[in-house]
Amino acid sequence: MVIETVPKASRVARGAFLKADGPITVDNWQDPPFNRWGFSHVAEMVTTAVVSRHPPTELTEERSGLPTSDTVAAIITDGFLEETHTEAFLVMRGQEVLHERYLGAARPTDRHLLMSVSKSLCALVVGRLVGQGLIDPGVTVPSYVPDLASGAYGLATVQQVLDMTVSVDYSEDYHNPAAHVHEQDRVAGWRPSHDGDPADTYEFLTTLQPAGEHGRVFQYCSASTDVLAWIVENVTGRRYADVLGSELWSRLGCSEDATVTVDRGGVAFANGGIACTARDLARVGRLVLDGGRVRGEEVVPRAWIEDTKTGGDRAAAEGTVFQRIHPRGSYRNQWWTTGDDRGTFYATGIHGQFLWLDPTSDVTVVKLSSLPVAVTEETSRKHAEAFNALTRALA
Amino acid sequence: MVIETVPKASRVARGAFLKADGPITVDNWQDPPFNRWGFSHVAEMVTTAVVSRHPPTELTEERSGLPTSDTVAAIITDGFLEETHTEAFLVMRGQEVLHERYLGAARPTDRHLLMSVSKSLCALVVGRLVGQGLIDPGVTVPSYVPDLASGAYGLATVQQVLDMTVSVDYSEDYHNPAAHVHEQDRVAGWRPSHDGDPADTYEFLTTLQPAGEHGRVFQYCSASTDVLAWIVENVTGRRYADVLGSELWSRLGCSEDATVTVDRGGVAFANGGIACTARDLARVGRLVLDGGRVRGEEVVPRAWIEDTKTGGDRAAAEGTVFQRIHPRGSYRNQWWTTGDDRGTFYATGIHGQFLWLDPTSDVTVVKLSSLPVAVTEETSRKHAEAFNALTRALA
Repeated sequence: MVIETVPKASRVARGAFLKADGPITVDNWQDPPFNRWGFSHVAEMVTTAVVSRHPPTELTEERSGLPTSDTVAAIITDGFLEETHTEAFLVMRGQEVLHERYLGAARPTDRHLLMSVSKSLCALVVGRLVGQGLIDPGVTVPSYVPDLASGAYGLATVQQVLDMTVSVDYSEDYHNPAAHVHEQDRVAGWRPSHDGDPADTYEFLTTLQPAGEHGRVFQYCSASTDVLAWIVENVTGRRYADVLGSELWSRLGCSEDATVTVDRGGVAFANGGIACTARDLARVGRLVLDGGRVRGEEVVPRAWIEDTKTGGDRAAAEGTVFQRIHPRGSYRNQWWTTGDDRGTFYATGIHGQFLWLDPTSDVTVVKLSSLPVAVTEETSRKHAEAFNALTRALA
Repeated sequence: MVIETVPKASRVARGAFLKADGPITVDNWQDPPFNRWGFSHVAEMVTTAVVSRHPPTELTEERSGLPTSDTVAAIITDGFLEETHTEAFLVMRGQEVLHERYLGAARPTDRHLLMSVSKSLCALVVGRLVGQGLIDPGVTVPSYVPDLASGAYGLATVQQVLDMTVSVDYSEDYHNPAAHVHEQDRVAGWRPSHDGDPADTYEFLTTLQPAGEHGRVFQYCSASTDVLAWIVENVTGRRYADVLGSELWSRLGCSEDATVTVDRGGVAFANGGIACTARDLARVGRLVLDGGRVRGEEVVPRAWIEDTKTGGDRAAAEGTVFQRIHPRGSYRNQWWTTGDDRGTFYATGIHGQFLWLDPTSDVTVVKLSSLPVAVTEETSRKHAEAFNALTRALA
């Protein structure tokens, strides 16, 4: 596949249809002509609370009427869910919901932050666009994002970005306030900004520098997913949230809209900012287990799903905590492949977010949590063991 | 009616169930125990874009399949809608949608900012709580909000707040950056904050001082609606967005959630911050025209609706632009009553938001716009004349 066209504009603006001078900001969104866009996108400019169309849980008793499986409950006990700070837990076998639990103040219609499960959703969109011939994984990033020509991604292929084998001078240490991942949080509006921070995520991405040869070592770098989202925006000419909606969310029969956080510049935080309900995330799981199809329609090419399930370069992931838990594990297309004899693969995010898929028993497990610590080997292992016990019992 | 209990806590905190020390802020929402709330309420902490579950309009051709009425289109022409910067326009007679138009990039599932139409929705909630005996309109504000005892609202009754006859040292001049309404915008996060601004809307409300005797002169003061929302929170012990959801939105058969903007302190901007679809706003209109009932269930007491329709003190509104357009007009319970022979009353917000109700022809008109100027006598008159011509033609 040869990509003939390089996008002229390297950034899709908010309200591009306005043909207005300058970006839409918190200073001008109420003024003409920006208000033509701003009044329909207020949640992008100001933080918002949901005014739910659903009765509160105590009125509907929806939680007590949920499906319960003794088999599931015996393995994933309420005690386990409590001690792992779970808000939502859902198990499907085939198309059937076997077990569904909401804890604390959570209810089935609440959107919960997915953290890095967002990455795996981004890659499904990339896979669809690859199928449409809009993205060639074999070419380098600047083919689609000229702004990234001189930095860490200048020589990286899209596939290397998908597989997290780009060598970037980037620290993903969640516990170190000086780490790049913290700077990125600030730029995204997830933490208070500091003087001198880049104006938005795209500007931040252009500051990143290479650290070595690409394609050899697995380096989990959240920024790489944001590079994928930038590619998505440039090849479609539409904003990431809109593409995610039209190409994925609206094709799954979702019961609620999702949201994705956006920064001051309007750039979506593709690497971790999606929030959705447990039920809708389970629909993503079914899409993937069903080879990318929903009710006979191809949403993501089967070949893309197969390639993802097959996994990536095991040698590249040598020495990682992931391989201590899953010795034959690898990372491919923003998904974690265990390499176990069941073909288990999954999406995961810090603080206990999981979309766990077992093709052998055709089981989807969703767990959305708020663990006190971002990630530890112990909690990762504990969840993997519990989910493995569960899927074996359901086979 | 005598209210026996004064609330102990004068503010309902985000995530109150956490029993955590201190407020939830952008500094701590990702950390325990605050993340138990934060991960399910990310749109309150960070700005978000919607990932829609609905196919884009160009895919569904939903806009071209919408109901069209020649009668409506002859009076409210597409030219009129264009020149008044309309995003959404909807006309119902009885339960039937006669005419529905979306312009520019707008689509039926988009939420549009209601501006001060939000005030009229707040008062419907107040009316419901009055019916439940939780609020007595005759008592003074500090009975429910002790924090407001010493300021502008210390001697004002709830009814005076509802009718905007509280005399407040407050400038509602949208075109003057030094006006209180601008300061309130900044506090709400609608504009960049200045050093020394109050921390949130509640703190801002405590700074307001009286300007004269209450109950005599109509003074349109946006802050007064935020006082009502504070009362709602304190008498229910729940946050405004949750009460609006459970007591109003979830009882109307709405097709989409609404949103309300919240400030850094988590206080909802009740006076202007609600966004919803045109269809859902029409459902509010039907509720009101149906005497507060939906499918046989009383949502708002009929007596409250009747009192609102009857209107307020005409003498208090003497000399207002409103009375130049509607000579027998008055303001009651956060709604504008025209005093015309059709019984027309309506909710309205700056930049062209309207929920216009004609009991005689049983017609609901919704218009959501982004006019370049906040409000002028000319545009108010133009809209009133157009809607009057329309409701007469549909009688």
